[in-house]
Amino acid sequence: MKTELNNTPHRRYNILTGEWILVSPHRTKRPWQGKTEETKVIKKETHDASCYLCPGNTRASGDTNPDYKEPYSFINDFSSLLPDAPEIDFQDGLLKAESEKGICKVVCFSPDHSLTLPLMEVEDITRVVKMWKKEYKELGAVENINYVQIFENKGAIMGCSNPHPHGQIWSQSSVPTEVLKKSVKFKEYWDQNKKSLLSDYLKQELDADERILEENEHFVALIPYWAVWPFEAMIIPKRHLQHIGQLNSEEEKAYAEILKKLTIKYDNLFETSFPYSSGIHQIPTDGKDYPEWHFHMSFYPPLLRSATVKKFMVGYEMFAGPQRDITAEQAAKRLNELSPVHYSK
Amino acid sequence: MKTELNNTPHRRYNILTGEWILVSPHRTKRPWQGKTEETKVIKKETHDASCYLCPGNTRASGDTNPDYKEPYSFINDFSSLLPDAPEIDFQDGLLKAESEKGICKVVCFSPDHSLTLPLMEVEDITRVVKMWKKEYKELGAVENINYVQIFENKGAIMGCSNPHPHGQIWSQSSVPTEVLKKSVKFKEYWDQNKKSLLSDYLKQELDADERILEENEHFVALIPYWAVWPFEAMIIPKRHLQHIGQLNSEEEKAYAEILKKLTIKYDNLFETSFPYSSGIHQIPTDGKDYPEWHFHMSFYPPLLRSATVKKFMVGYEMFAGPQRDITAEQAAKRLNELSPVHYSK
Ligand SMILES: O=P(O)(O)O[C@H]1O[C@H](CO)[C@@H](O)[C@H](O)[C@H]1O
Ligand SMILES: O=P(O)(O)O[C@H]1O[C@H](CO)[C@@H](O)[C@H](O)[C@H]1O
Repeated sequence: MKTELNNTPHRRYNILTGEWILVSPHRTKRPWQGKTEETKVIKKETHDASCYLCPGNTRASGDTNPDYKEPYSFINDFSSLLPDAPEIDFQDGLLKAESEKGICKVVCFSPDHSLTLPLMEVEDITRVVKMWKKEYKELGAVENINYVQIFENKGAIMGCSNPHPHGQIWSQSSVPTEVLKKSVKFKEYWDQNKKSLLSDYLKQELDADERILEENEHFVALIPYWAVWPFEAMIIPKRHLQHIGQLNSEEEKAYAEILKKLTIKYDNLFETSFPYSSGIHQIPTDGKDYPEWHFHMSFYPPLLRSATVKKFMVGYEMFAGPQRDITAEQAAKRLNELSPVHYSK
Repeated sequence: MKTELNNTPHRRYNILTGEWILVSPHRTKRPWQGKTEETKVIKKETHDASCYLCPGNTRASGDTNPDYKEPYSFINDFSSLLPDAPEIDFQDGLLKAESEKGICKVVCFSPDHSLTLPLMEVEDITRVVKMWKKEYKELGAVENINYVQIFENKGAIMGCSNPHPHGQIWSQSSVPTEVLKKSVKFKEYWDQNKKSLLSDYLKQELDADERILEENEHFVALIPYWAVWPFEAMIIPKRHLQHIGQLNSEEEKAYAEILKKLTIKYDNLFETSFPYSSGIHQIPTDGKDYPEWHFHMSFYPPLLRSATVKKFMVGYEMFAGPQRDITAEQAAKRLNELSPVHYSK
C-alpha cells in the first residue's frame, strides 16, 4: 500500500485545513528548461552601512535604529494595517467591504547583519523566541487586535527586500482565513475526542518514524503527511499549548534548538541560504477560549531540485489546488541524510 | 464611503469563494529594495529549432510534432496525472490518501513561435477557443474524468518553461478545492434567488462602471471587486452558461476578441510581454446538473509596479490570507488609460 503510493499519482488529506493536495511522485524526471534563480553567497559583513535594519542606521522613514544588542522590534514604516483605520461597514448589493484595524511590526533577530537563524547561537535564537512571546502577548492585549500573525520571509525569492535577519508580525481585528480553517478542524476533533488533533497526530508520526526530522524533549520537527511545498516542515510542541505565550523557559530553549537544527538541514540541502516563509499559527487573541487549538510553526520553502530551481505554484495550483512532485517521505529522507553541521563551517 | 475605502486599509469579500482579502491602498509609497525580474524582449523567430513545441520538432519524450497549422494538442510528456493509476483508498489513523486518475494535455495555440495571445489574429484565437471547447467535451466524456481544468502559465516568472504560445489542460477524477468553493457559493445564491450569482454581479458592475475593462455583445472583462493579484481580471459571458461547450459560434468569436483586447492592455501596461496564469472555471463533468454555475475565466498576473517588480504572495499571505496594495478601481483606471493598440506595433 505505502509503496504503491510512492509511485502513483494520489491525493493526500490535510487534517488541519480539510483540503486535499495532489502528489505526483513519478514526475521528478521532467527536464527543466524554465526559470532559474540566482544563488546567494553567504554574506560576510556584520554591519552594512546601507542596511536600514542594522543598529545605528537611519531607516527609509527617517527614524534611526538604536544601537541594539538583542532582538529589536519596531512598528513597520510601511505598515499594511493601521491602528486608527476609520470604522467602515460597506455593503452595496453584491459588493461587501469593511475596515480592518491592525498593527504591523518588524523584528530584527540579531544586530549582526551577516547572520540567519541557522548561523545564530541557540541562546540568541532563544531571545528571538522570547521576543515573539512578548509581542504576541502585548499586541494581543491591544483593543481590537484579535489575531497576531508572526512570520518570516527569508530570501529574495520569498519577497524579502532586506537580507538583515528579521521577521514580521502583522496583527489585526479579524481572524484570517487560514487560521479559521484550522479552528474548524481542531474544534471538530476536540468535540469528538476531547483531545488535541495535533497531539494524536504527533503520536502517530513518532510511531511511524517516516517523516520525523528532529526531536528533543519538548518539540518535534517533521514533514507533514500533507505537505504542499517540496520540503515543507512543521515544528510542533509536545505539550498541548494554545499559544507561544504559554512556553516555559525550558521549552523556549528547546524551541530555539530545534529551529536551529531544522534550518541547518535546510541550508545543507542545496548548500545555499535556504529561502522560505515561516509562520506560527496559534489561538486568536479575542479573549475567547480555544482549548482545542495546538500551536505550531510551519515552513514553506520553494526550492525543489537545486539552489536555483524552485517549485512554481501557478496555473493548476491557483485554479484547482496544490500539487507536488516528491512525496513527504522522500523529502524527509533527503533531509535526514544531511550533516547536522552547517556546510559553511 | 467609496472615497474613504480608497485611502484606508480594509477587507473585501469574494462572493465566489466566501473568503476575504486585505486591501492596503496607502501602501504603494513603500520603497522597493527587493528582487527585480528580468525584462523579456519580444521574440522574433517564428520557428525555433530547439523548441519542443514548434511544428516538426522532436520533443523531450522522443515524439515528433506534426507540421501543424492550427492549434495542436497532445498528451503531456510529463503528466502529473495518469489515466491508469491503480485504485487506492488509504486510511491509517490520521493519515488519509486516495489515488487520483487523470489526463494532462498541452495545447499549442499557434505554430508561430513568436506569438502570444495579444499578438494573434482574432480568427486564430477563435480556433484556440474551439480547441478548448473540444477538449473540455472530449476529456469530460472520458470515464473517471469529473473535472477539466484549462489554464495557461505565461512567462518565466509564472513557471512557464517554454515561450512557445501554449496552455495546458489537467483533467481528473475529483473536483478540485478551488472549484468546490465556488460551487457552494453559486448554489447558495441560486437556492435563494433562482438566478446566477454572476449574472447579477455583472449587472451591478455594468451599472457602476468603475471596474469594467472591456465589453462586447457577449462578454465583459473586468477587475473583480475582490481582486487579489494587482491587475487580476475576469472574463464573464453575458449569457448564463455553465461551460464553454455551450458557446455558439458568435460567442466564440466575441470571446476571442475580448481575450485579445484584455491581453493587449496587459502588455501595454508595462510595455512587456505581461506574465500571468489564467484559468477557466466551469462545471464538473461528472454528469450532474449545475444550473447555478456560470463559467468564467480569470487572469492572475503578478507584476505590480513595473516590468521587473512583482507582488509576492508570501509570509502573511500564506499564513493569514491574500493582501494587495492598490485597489481594484485604481487597477481598472490604469488599464483603461492605455492604448488599445499593442505597443510593439
Ligand atoms: O507543466 P509545466 O509548464 O512544466 O509546469 C508549470 O505548470 C505546472 C502546473 O501549473 C506547475 O505544477 C509547475 O510547477 C510549473 O512549473
Ligand atoms: O513587508 P515586506 O518584507 O516589504 O514585503 C514582503 O512581505 C509581505 C508580507 O508577506 C508581502 O505582502 C510582500 O509582498 C512581500 O514583498
